[in-house]
Amino acid sequence: MYIENLCSAAKEAEVEIAQLSTKVKNTILLKSAKALLDNMDHILKINRLDVEKAKDAGVKSAFIDRLTLTEERIKGMAQGLEEIATLNDPVGEFVYGKTLPNGLIIQQKRVPLGVIAIIFESRPNVTADAFGLCLKSGNAVVLRGGKEAINTNIAIVNIFKEVLRECGVNEHAVQILEDTSHDTANKLMKAHKYVDVLIPRGSARLINAVIENSTIPCIQTGIGNCHIFVDESAKIKNAIDIIINAKTQRPGVCNAVETLLIHRNIADKILPQLGKELADRHVEIRGDETVRKYIPQAIEAVEDDWATEYEDYIVAIKTVDTLDEVIKHIGKYGTGHSESILTENYTNAQKFLNEVDAAAVYVNASTRFTDGGQFGFGAEIGISTQKLHARGPMGLKELTTVKYVIMGNGQIRE
Amino acid sequence: MYIENLCSAAKEAEVEIAQLSTKVKNTILLKSAKALLDNMDHILKINRLDVEKAKDAGVKSAFIDRLTLTEERIKGMAQGLEEIATLNDPVGEFVYGKTLPNGLIIQQKRVPLGVIAIIFESRPNVTADAFGLCLKSGNAVVLRGGKEAINTNIAIVNIFKEVLRECGVNEHAVQILEDTSHDTANKLMKAHKYVDVLIPRGSARLINAVIENSTIPCIQTGIGNCHIFVDESAKIKNAIDIIINAKTQRPGVCNAVETLLIHRNIADKILPQLGKELADRHVEIRGDETVRKYIPQAIEAVEDDWATEYEDYIVAIKTVDTLDEVIKHIGKYGTGHSESILTENYTNAQKFLNEVDAAAVYVNASTRFTDGGQFGFGAEIGISTQKLHARGPMGLKELTTVKYVIMGNGQIRE
Repeated sequence: MYIENLCSAAKEAEVEIAQLSTKVKNTILLKSAKALLDNMDHILKINRLDVEKAKDAGVKSAFIDRLTLTEERIKGMAQGLEEIATLNDPVGEFVYGKTLPNGLIIQQKRVPLGVIAIIFESRPNVTADAFGLCLKSGNAVVLRGGKEAINTNIAIVNIFKEVLRECGVNEHAVQILEDTSHDTANKLMKAHKYVDVLIPRGSARLINAVIENSTIPCIQTGIGNCHIFVDESAKIKNAIDIIINAKTQRPGVCNAVETLLIHRNIADKILPQLGKELADRHVEIRGDETVRKYIPQAIEAVEDDWATEYEDYIVAIKTVDTLDEVIKHIGKYGTGHSESILTENYTNAQKFLNEVDAAAVYVNASTRFTDGGQFGFGAEIGISTQKLHARGPMGLKELTTVKYVIMGNGQIRE
Repeated sequence: MYIENLCSAAKEAEVEIAQLSTKVKNTILLKSAKALLDNMDHILKINRLDVEKAKDAGVKSAFIDRLTLTEERIKGMAQGLEEIATLNDPVGEFVYGKTLPNGLIIQQKRVPLGVIAIIFESRPNVTADAFGLCLKSGNAVVLRGGKEAINTNIAIVNIFKEVLRECGVNEHAVQILEDTSHDTANKLMKAHKYVDVLIPRGSARLINAVIENSTIPCIQTGIGNCHIFVDESAKIKNAIDIIINAKTQRPGVCNAVETLLIHRNIADKILPQLGKELADRHVEIRGDETVRKYIPQAIEAVEDDWATEYEDYIVAIKTVDTLDEVIKHIGKYGTGHSESILTENYTNAQKFLNEVDAAAVYVNASTRFTDGGQFGFGAEIGISTQKLHARGPMGLKELTTVKYVIMGNGQIRE
């Protein structure tokens, strides 16, 4: 009954949230930002407990880094909410409309999705982002964060609930699962009676668990085995700059490049220098025979390397003979996230853009641009790698649906 | 391996289908229409075998009617394909585009979904419709029809496969499951490695089986427990005309009305005449106490009646006191399909349109208009009652997704 009570309360709140004016929603967002800053010491104190417990449990330092809040990070969360307040409200937009020959006026209006559940890892800033984006788009949100961040998440959500109460709005518009067991997460995945959409954010393991178990319509996010293909006509300097950027600017994110495909005819011109630049930045290289010929420090790539999202200072490199081979390789190993061709050849650029099946396809640019902020949508709730509903960075608009609104004066169907 | 082979062949074909020009796709559609007419006798002969077998098995006459093909129905299927050839091709449309401050050109392009699986009942005309709509939108389609129509479906699909071969196109763009066991259907629901979207068309039982078992993203269609609310200010004559139309013009379809909600203050003015008009058309009435007071032939409605999609000459009628009660009732028992208010009150009309959560909300019109043809979209693949991706009648556009196409000249992320 725990999940049922929690989710049905969210569904009840949603009826109210869906009808809030933009003005009220923005007031709640700004008050929530202020409340985060006002409660900074309290949040930091509770977060320290979570962090200490995680350290005692011996988790990795990268994990501790994501879990840890600082004064600056809490300011960032507050600023995020303030920014969401400045974004256009997608709810109530009319996206289509016409008058039928029989006089019926038919219009398509943008409305909230309803109740959105988000399962995410131990990054407390997601709690604030998700609340802000869901509220602004008129949705109630049920959050299930990683167990290591549970006390921090509860503290943050309680601050938001208090702001909602102060504003006279149903506080169940934001819910947090205090029970972080797998069993409860599985029950949440089956709560299609109350939850309209489930968004898993996290590892391939989490996404697969959701695909296998969820009875709620899902949006898969964030698995990115991204490729850059260096065609024989590519500009060498541009190519090296783009590869270094896509691999090393922030290797732990989903739009970082993982495999490079190098046209055989340009291998001798680019590989020696590329190998040196990657080595300078401590990037481990796994390559085929040709690659190892030109880059002595490269180790042998095995089948698994082509399918791996390293999210680390590691890159796989393969030599290829044709663009068709590239398209097949990406079709086989890619995850439909971001794929880039570096070329001066018009026909090859067009062919790559048309035939590579991914959320974002690039010519002569870094894959790192696939991001709601970079695309100019403001904050994002995740990057969809599925084809249904949303594909690529999901902003406020992707957290809405439409309804047909039809006005008549007595029409009946003949 | 049966499902895996069938679906992976469709996925392979899809790469080719996605790139076909509108001209080639229209040629295939027109040739397929002609091939249906040319093979009329063959199809009718095979259909007679299916029909005889179904009759021997003792299925209901309404079922036999849907299963049976006639010369006229095959002409209708051919005409349907010809009409799809006249519709705009959604593939390749650019729905958004801008140049970012760093010079990157970012555009959103409409592309096919990929491989679409459709599970449907024993209506052979769906086989032609689904093939036509999926082909025109650049998708491959895997069909799983009802077991009673299997020989007819195979005959029709083989005709389409021959046209594809003639046109030099991969014939696996249309696949039919010759094995119609439940076990195979369940395996199809798990084939997310090859199938991008699953559309179940049929009973609530089928839809629920898909929700429970499918690992493929789904679009739920067609369950319609639709309501009409007659407000106290409604025009009596209009209201009766609309109700008779919504209930009796075609009671077996999902946009027919199932429950009427009548404002108590208008009950004495509308119920006696409405009862008479419904009786004239042999509609059974199930009502609350007030309804039974004004309509003597009405029998008592029980809790189940409010939740039932009769798809028959039966209607449930309930007296209500307020619009809020109406909105709550529809929220509890509705299926998010089509809901209509009959009123002359502006505020109530607006409140109903805003607060009732359904694919289509109406003022002063019959619910029977929720239909791709009526909305002017041409043919439809079904009516979505879910919120993700598509809501309401789904035409060609709803069988596509988008991809981001990004063109740069060396941009890297700062």
